[in-house]
Amino acid sequence: MYEGAVQDLIDELGRLPGIGPKSAQRVAFHILEADGEDMKRLADAIVSVKEKVKFCEICFNVSEESTCRICQDSRRDPSVICVVEESKDVMAIERTRSFRGRYHVLGGSINPIAGVGPDQLHIRELLNRLSDDQIKEVIIATDPNLEGEATATYLVRMLGSIGIKLTRLASGLPVGGDLEYADDVTLGRAFEGRTDLS
Amino acid sequence: MYEGAVQDLIDELGRLPGIGPKSAQRVAFHILEADGEDMKRLADAIVSVKEKVKFCEICFNVSEESTCRICQDSRRDPSVICVVEESKDVMAIERTRSFRGRYHVLGGSINPIAGVGPDQLHIRELLNRLSDDQIKEVIIATDPNLEGEATATYLVRMLGSIGIKLTRLASGLPVGGDLEYADDVTLGRAFEGRTDLS
Repeated sequence: MYEGAVQDLIDELGRLPGIGPKSAQRVAFHILEADGEDMKRLADAIVSVKEKVKFCEICFNVSEESTCRICQDSRRDPSVICVVEESKDVMAIERTRSFRGRYHVLGGSINPIAGVGPDQLHIRELLNRLSDDQIKEVIIATDPNLEGEATATYLVRMLGSIGIKLTRLASGLPVGGDLEYADDVTLGRAFEGRTDLS
Repeated sequence: MYEGAVQDLIDELGRLPGIGPKSAQRVAFHILEADGEDMKRLADAIVSVKEKVKFCEICFNVSEESTCRICQDSRRDPSVICVVEESKDVMAIERTRSFRGRYHVLGGSINPIAGVGPDQLHIRELLNRLSDDQIKEVIIATDPNLEGEATATYLVRMLGSIGIKLTRLASGLPVGGDLEYADDVTLGRAFEGRTDLS
């Protein structure tokens, strides 16, 4: 519809996740009208993230060095590994400040429809890490959805026999939510996982 | 929260319109994991749109040359000018294929709260164009919202005395919509602007 460069930009923006044709157009016109220096910085940030950012050799979290800040930090408890799907999940857990161990980022979840099997995830590398005697507990923190549960089940089957404590994050009612609005499965889980107050 | 380059990219993306912190993070991780060539193309498209795209000297539509394709097209009727707020509006009207005249892009609408007065819009340039005798009609196609109506009212006051026919796009019920779901103002306008079928 538009002339050359504007349409090219709309097309490229429209390929990003969560950006439909209307937002792509809106963002493109914003870029067109915005300050040239600001937009140069945006373009540079895209190029530089591809050049600089790698994945940690130990846990596969994003990192600008060969090992990430968390794996380098000697104050973190090396005896507990929290297994998550993505680097975004590491950040979400870090924000809670309730975990002081280390992580292992699988790089996704088992999803046969999208063609992702256990071999595409960093599960072999997790098994290698667990051969270290100092590891006492593995916390499985995959998403509480179909793919995350399938991945958790697979991990339990793989790791169940090696004698390390395996735990899974609690499912239940979200804090601040209304009981009557909770879905049936969540409410069922909240009953199953009820805690003893006596 | 993240290390250097990832956080820089999230910050830059978060400044774009309609992209909140969560989408900025999602898009940043998409860029991180996507094909390097594709992302180079996105960065280039941003830089190139700023370098190549200018505004038409006649109508202020976006253009890669000094005058836009529509102003250059001798088959377009030079006697009718459709006044719109943005280049996006030109494209929306072009898609309808119901207008064969030319355009004038104001570059926004009068919005005292955002500090946009008539002097920031290309209204003087419109007046200059209207000194050409061949122009018979000006269609005011600003948005049907508060700012668009204020701009239309201002234009009517400015142009009312120069003896050119002034029209405004019809307000009324959107085609395909339900009468009972129309808001009061729209329904009121539909009554006022009712057409004669007899």
